[in-house]
Amino acid sequence: MNVAADPATARPRAVVLVSGGLDSATALAIARDAGYACYALSFDYGQRHVSEIDAARRITAMLGVEEFRLFPLQIGSFGGSALTDNAIAVPESPSAGIPVTYVPARNTVFLALAWAEVLGAQDVFIGVNAVDFSGYPDCRPEYIQAFERMANLATRSAVEGQPFRIHTPLIDLSKADIIHRGRALGVDYGLTVSCYAADAQGRACGRCDSCRLRRDGFAAAGVTDPTRYL
Amino acid sequence: MNVAADPATARPRAVVLVSGGLDSATALAIARDAGYACYALSFDYGQRHVSEIDAARRITAMLGVEEFRLFPLQIGSFGGSALTDNAIAVPESPSAGIPVTYVPARNTVFLALAWAEVLGAQDVFIGVNAVDFSGYPDCRPEYIQAFERMANLATRSAVEGQPFRIHTPLIDLSKADIIHRGRALGVDYGLTVSCYAADAQGRACGRCDSCRLRRDGFAAAGVTDPTRYL
Repeated sequence: MNVAADPATARPRAVVLVSGGLDSATALAIARDAGYACYALSFDYGQRHVSEIDAARRITAMLGVEEFRLFPLQIGSFGGSALTDNAIAVPESPSAGIPVTYVPARNTVFLALAWAEVLGAQDVFIGVNAVDFSGYPDCRPEYIQAFERMANLATRSAVEGQPFRIHTPLIDLSKADIIHRGRALGVDYGLTVSCYAADAQGRACGRCDSCRLRRDGFAAAGVTDPTRYL
Repeated sequence: MNVAADPATARPRAVVLVSGGLDSATALAIARDAGYACYALSFDYGQRHVSEIDAARRITAMLGVEEFRLFPLQIGSFGGSALTDNAIAVPESPSAGIPVTYVPARNTVFLALAWAEVLGAQDVFIGVNAVDFSGYPDCRPEYIQAFERMANLATRSAVEGQPFRIHTPLIDLSKADIIHRGRALGVDYGLTVSCYAADAQGRACGRCDSCRLRRDGFAAAGVTDPTRYL
């Protein structure tokens, strides 16, 4: 298997994980700006806020990708998270430790590798952030490093001399810095949905942890918040 | 989250990956013999040989599990493997390097963690083997070690002091040793399906790499091969 330049564009290919939120939209803009032909991957994991999938479609259409793929992953069928289990309420104030919105073993970079291998892409972008984040363990740099090491032992491409690189361009940025970076690259954050309890039209509750981090980020950035609230 | 003993049995819980083949059936028998309440997880990943899923059901029914769960994972939708892509033929002779039956980033231990977290299980069993195997990179001990390290950075259970243990009881055994071990624990290998090209009734082609390893294993073990061949 060889690393493939995209035939249509002659640019190297990258798989970019796109959730529909602010961070991954910025990560996609950064990957495009770095010269990659981008293949955007979203997951339908039984999340409550399906409007984030609509947001992912809008964002990829606006920024431009070679392909958008929505992969069904019913990880919610195992239960255990407020994001997938209606029996668990989405909390309205920050919690100590890892919050109930954590989805067990949710981090789905793993499946991005499958597509990257088939595409001949060595590069995977993920918009994780370890500054203004909810305390999910799978957003920390040490997790990403361990993941990259594991990936390069797991996959044919890596064994055959084409190791994967997991890019986390936002990992050390504040939410305000992310917003400044994305705006400079033309991201329209009005298209993104961050709320854990957004309605079908993508309107945000304004009270959950994700809304709080986003709203505080726009305030700290000195930028008008384009979020549509309920 | 606390490690849970199974309420029905008072035994510690383990998630066991069960494919329907010889190795994972043996891993399940070993986990049960070690005293675990076993939760068996199989994947419907669009594989050609769906009869292996039937085999997984028969094996778990015979050996006894607390629950059997079949998780849909359409990793084959990315293409790139003879096991999921009808455009790629299943080879009939051993190949140099990693064979075309390798499924990109296939190793699905990852999703077992999601269930283990919800169950409060610290233990995951997987029947990978690095002796009589097809050369898949995700069956090697160094991969499993890197995976365990990554898992213990990724998950809430681990962060909260309940690290996962990935058990690979077969990793250093020959196929003949696996067969001896399983027979001693009551595994009926006539229920298992290993063939990459088995028909709907689970009858094996006798020619693919997996058939060859299995047949040679029974011969080396001095045990009558119970496989039904086409």
